Amino acid sequence: MKFAALLTSAGINIGICVLLLSLYSILRKQPGNASVYFGRRLAEERSRRMGSFVLERFVPSPSWIVKAWSYSEEEILSIAGLDAVVFIRIIVFSMRIFSIAAIVCMFGVLPLNYFGQEMEHGSISSESLDVFTIGNVKMHSHWLWVHCLALYIISCSACALLYFEYKSIARLRLLHITRSPPNPSHFTVLVRAIPKSKEETFNDSVKHFFTNHHASSYLSHQIICRVGKVHKVMNNAELAIKKLNQLKDSVIVKTFQPLRYRCGLCGGASNSFRLYHNEFELSSKKTDATVCSDSTAKHKECAAAFVFFRTRYAAVVTSEILQSSNPMYWVTDLAPEPHDVYWSNLWIPYRQLWFRKIATLIASIVFMILFLIPVTFVQGLSQLDHLQQTFPFLNGILRKLNSKIMLCCLLVDDVGKNFIGCNEINQLNVISSPKDIPTQLAIAVPSQATFFITYVLTSGWASLSSEIMQLFGLVWNFIRRRILRWKDDPISVPSFPYHTEVPKVLLFGLLGFTCSILAPLILPFLLIYFFLSYVVYRNQIVHVYCSKYESGGKMWPIAHNTIIFSLVLSQIIAIGVFGIKKSPTASSFTIPLAICTLLFNEYCRQRFSPIFKKFSAEDLMQMDKEDELSGKMEEILEQLPSAYCQFPDDTQELDIEVFQGENAAAVQVDGESSSNDAKCGFFHRNVFGFLACRLKQAVMSLTFMVLTSDRTSQTLVIV
Amino acid sequence: MKFAALLTSAGINIGICVLLLSLYSILRKQPGNASVYFGRRLAEERSRRMGSFVLERFVPSPSWIVKAWSYSEEEILSIAGLDAVVFIRIIVFSMRIFSIAAIVCMFGVLPLNYFGQEMEHGSISSESLDVFTIGNVKMHSHWLWVHCLALYIISCSACALLYFEYKSIARLRLLHITRSPPNPSHFTVLVRAIPKSKEETFNDSVKHFFTNHHASSYLSHQIICRVGKVHKVMNNAELAIKKLNQLKDSVIVKTFQPLRYRCGLCGGASNSFRLYHNEFELSSKKTDATVCSDSTAKHKECAAAFVFFRTRYAAVVTSEILQSSNPMYWVTDLAPEPHDVYWSNLWIPYRQLWFRKIATLIASIVFMILFLIPVTFVQGLSQLDHLQQTFPFLNGILRKLNSKIMLCCLLVDDVGKNFIGCNEINQLNVISSPKDIPTQLAIAVPSQATFFITYVLTSGWASLSSEIMQLFGLVWNFIRRRILRWKDDPISVPSFPYHTEVPKVLLFGLLGFTCSILAPLILPFLLIYFFLSYVVYRNQIVHVYCSKYESGGKMWPIAHNTIIFSLVLSQIIAIGVFGIKKSPTASSFTIPLAICTLLFNEYCRQRFSPIFKKFSAEDLMQMDKEDELSGKMEEILEQLPSAYCQFPDDTQELDIEVFQGENAAAVQVDGESSSNDAKCGFFHRNVFGFLACRLKQAVMSLTFMVLTSDRTSQTLVIV
Repeated sequence: MKFAALLTSAGINIGICVLLLSLYSILRKQPGNASVYFGRRLAEERSRRMGSFVLERFVPSPSWIVKAWSYSEEEILSIAGLDAVVFIRIIVFSMRIFSIAAIVCMFGVLPLNYFGQEMEHGSISSESLDVFTIGNVKMHSHWLWVHCLALYIISCSACALLYFEYKSIARLRLLHITRSPPNPSHFTVLVRAIPKSKEETFNDSVKHFFTNHHASSYLSHQIICRVGKVHKVMNNAELAIKKLNQLKDSVIVKTFQPLRYRCGLCGGASNSFRLYHNEFELSSKKTDATVCSDSTAKHKECAAAFVFFRTRYAAVVTSEILQSSNPMYWVTDLAPEPHDVYWSNLWIPYRQLWFRKIATLIASIVFMILFLIPVTFVQGLSQLDHLQQTFPFLNGILRKLNSKIMLCCLLVDDVGKNFIGCNEINQLNVISSPKDIPTQLAIAVPSQATFFITYVLTSGWASLSSEIMQLFGLVWNFIRRRILRWKDDPISVPSFPYHTEVPKVLLFGLLGFTCSILAPLILPFLLIYFFLSYVVYRNQIVHVYCSKYESGGKMWPIAHNTIIFSLVLSQIIAIGVFGIKKSPTASSFTIPLAICTLLFNEYCRQRFSPIFKKFSAEDLMQMDKEDELSGKMEEILEQLPSAYCQFPDDTQELDIEVFQGENAAAVQVDGESSSNDAKCGFFHRNVFGFLACRLKQAVMSLTFMVLTSDRTSQTLVIV
Repeated sequence: MKFAALLTSAGINIGICVLLLSLYSILRKQPGNASVYFGRRLAEERSRRMGSFVLERFVPSPSWIVKAWSYSEEEILSIAGLDAVVFIRIIVFSMRIFSIAAIVCMFGVLPLNYFGQEMEHGSISSESLDVFTIGNVKMHSHWLWVHCLALYIISCSACALLYFEYKSIARLRLLHITRSPPNPSHFTVLVRAIPKSKEETFNDSVKHFFTNHHASSYLSHQIICRVGKVHKVMNNAELAIKKLNQLKDSVIVKTFQPLRYRCGLCGGASNSFRLYHNEFELSSKKTDATVCSDSTAKHKECAAAFVFFRTRYAAVVTSEILQSSNPMYWVTDLAPEPHDVYWSNLWIPYRQLWFRKIATLIASIVFMILFLIPVTFVQGLSQLDHLQQTFPFLNGILRKLNSKIMLCCLLVDDVGKNFIGCNEINQLNVISSPKDIPTQLAIAVPSQATFFITYVLTSGWASLSSEIMQLFGLVWNFIRRRILRWKDDPISVPSFPYHTEVPKVLLFGLLGFTCSILAPLILPFLLIYFFLSYVVYRNQIVHVYCSKYESGGKMWPIAHNTIIFSLVLSQIIAIGVFGIKKSPTASSFTIPLAICTLLFNEYCRQRFSPIFKKFSAEDLMQMDKEDELSGKMEEILEQLPSAYCQFPDDTQELDIEVFQGENAAAVQVDGESSSNDAKCGFFHRNVFGFLACRLKQAVMSLTFMVLTSDRTSQTLVIV
């Protein structure tokens, strides 16, 4: 690929991005799209209804960028919780470290690469991109120490930045724990594998065990019941009839619409039962433990229970200490939050759990391997020659396409090369001799540098544009409003897709670290990506998404480990490259760097990671003491026994609090609100979310394919 | 190697073993050797002095074997503790599983191997040993399913036996914990990394922290002091002068001998200060906490302390819960037993510990690699041709030796082959492509079968004879009594060398599993080894060794994991061998077996291993309750604050209890009795123990070399 071609490509992508962002700045001003672009705000301000949007509606403006940039960390923390802050911090870290890397590599490494061989240089725009990579440095070169030094600077800065980030996020997490409002899950322990006895019921066993061993701190408990399939259906039917009767007597349904369950994937949610809600709320205000036990009495007890304690400290102690001399009995764990309980999982006998976990692990590995098959197939197709051979009828079309590509950017040849290179990376997957890995990586990665640059340009920038445009939401909103003509549909606020966005940002970090000293040209494009993502994600967090699940920043240790992995990988590749360039000095100077990086990681693991796994006695006791002094404790303990309620009659109040909207009412009808929602959430977070994300990317890539046909195959691969 | 040669070799070894055992049965009857062969009993019966040994002193008799066989498990438990029982259980497990394996393989697999090829068989004694291995089975043979079935039977029996052993040892461990007498370490927590503050001393910090957070269970604490080098020397000098003055006034030293510190390696121990002991005991009976604090007041406090609690449960809770929101402060752990504290280790700042641990790990890996160098050198030498080339002056000697070997057993050729094979195993060390490992192992292991059989014959049986003969002890005893003419030297009772014997037994298990279906001829020899070791080790445990360190059976999980590793390794090798023999059916039938074995291991890990790592709340509370009801608790809590005392004035009483002899008094003079002894114990258990064991083996092997010169090189390698 020539430098000019790269610039053209960058130009096209910048143009498209500017176009899409301008489009976004116009579309967001249209009142009809408010549900797409301001979901969170709408949900929050629901009670006072939306104000009118009197703005210059059809003039693109960059004001949203300025706004997104101007939110302080405290604001984001209060709006979207700690997870959002940690996610933004990952981006900020990337911005900082790649700014340093860009300065060091653009002014130190790039000139060395460019003048690495004794050759005549033409005009820069006609130079091949390989001239800018380490491949252009001649063998035995004494200048490789500059690369080594650059690697040292980048690694040391990265470690220093990581340390300060870890420290500050650990501080935030501690604040998050100590300042969080009283949560039933802090006082509750989930006990599984209650041993069966002939004399006692499970209920009596639990009472007996905990009054015997934890008399001073034990408050009460709640046995979990098992519901059979038929029983469940019957129950739901009864409930539905009851509600329908209530409804007949009290409310006139003006606009009847088909019953649709909210699934969280497509953004559609039913409001057909919205009206029940207020009514039901009025008629059944008896949410207390007696009702709960009434309804559980009908069901079969299973060997699990929620046990409530008088203090947070007692609950944590009980959850962490081995209770019985048989480790397969009385297994304790801190309880999940009430709305995050997936009840039917609690029915599974504890003895099966370890096996199920292993089966899940194996299944996910198999799924990953199977997923490689279509990717490889698409990759195979993407080589235009192959495409021609496989589907001869495409000949004509391809020839046209081909010529168009040649007129457009003259990149086909390069694309072909890229994919040969790509296949080389695939060959790496086959586990080969471990000691050759540095050398093999050193051969494969630099040759892929051009591909990675275009990957950042297309997939990186495209995914951000796709993210902010919310193409699916927009289209669905249009269909709903204009074609299906549904009105007053409640806005379903999606939760932030951390499971797809965090790996994406970390992947670009990995590309940055591995390519920084090998092909520094990637850095400016990467920096643009990170700056753009900073603005885009802040905007989305504030306006579009809500945060249903708050892990309290637990994703940071994962991100930290991934960044350390990227650093060490880039160091190993550097060792290999220096080896290939016959510079044993540089090679051996890099080894201590890798060891120090690993030692640094070990230190961080010792110093910080327990904070993300355990609660400290000091904090818990402090919180307990404060609640007792302020007199809150009594109130908390009173509400505790009714916090976890397995059957629908009583969960309503809770759900309303949790979901901040009226979706809960719609789900009510199903008869197991929180369980159902958790199930839905689970699927959304895992399988559907993944597929939806891929699908979104595919559509975005297709758009790009039409606009910039020169990178057809690349985008296909990205899909 | 021919079958007849193997039988000859076995005959020679059996003869030597019988000879040595007979010699042992005579030597043990000599009163002069009582200190070597009855160290434990002598130490125990010290007060009432040894009875006279009026026995048929010079007639060998097998009565000791019958006696050793007849001890019940309860007797061994009461005599030598749980660790000894677990060690014997490892041997019993091996006896059982290899009995099953021997029956299955000798009657099922061996005939198949023998008639595997369509060939004329001569007389069995002239057959090559290769005829009895799987190598003799022809390609594509349909009879390989018998091997596969045998592997299934062995693996399933091994898993079943392992399960029952694990269950019964876990039960024993629980009994060991619940029935053990009150131990200060159960009530004590070692706190490290006490944060430094300007307002408070460490002493005040600890008091403040624990009265604040654990008011109900906190009893008292003891700050650990740091002793400077100069300070220590001065202190010791003062102490020595004080003692000398005391001595002058009271006792007349009759026989003055040079001062020798006991190191635990050579078995020698000084009694020169034995007389001080009684005197000192009489004059300083003031072992209480006030004295301790008096002597600590002179030293510099360091950031560690022992904190004492009112109950065992409270101590365990404090040790397992994260105390501070900074995981690098207030690090808690259950305290070691008072006589097992290595004080100067407690001075190390906690922040350095993780780094030191890593450094130790790296150092031990380097040490292992370095240890390979002399082994390889000796191995190289052991090939007689190489020896000749390296040292031309040895030509004549070697020629004689060579001819002698040829006259003796005609095994040289085979030995040569073995070592070529052995080099193949060495080549395996170089990490090669992981997917080829089964095939490579499948090539290397069967070809080594003959070597492994002779290894069992020589090193296995030899090490047992060496163990029971106590050659070093015997020689040292002789020198001491006859040449140096020392009298009345107290007997130093060595502790059982688990660190060398457990790996040895497990190594023979590994050989057995990997060879069982490949070369079943190894099994009878292995069975003899295990039966012999059963008798020998029981005898040694009862008569010779004492148990200074009781881990409560913690070695079983390690043994279990090693046996599982051996099983899986043998299955992987079988997969490789079936692959080489072009029997994909047998290969693919073995894969589920390996998976099931791993699953079984995972189940055991879930079911049993927490018992070996943690104490359960149920047991601890039960123990606390019993002590409280019986009124013992007050007494325990009274003695608790004086249990851990850092300075010598007060440790005397304790040490006397612990060492059951008078060695403690000799160590006294050094000024830090328990620390010194722990140091000594540490070295003994690690470096010296290892070297001593190697040295012993070397000597034993040399003896064998002279007696059975046909296996010179093999024994050299074993060394």
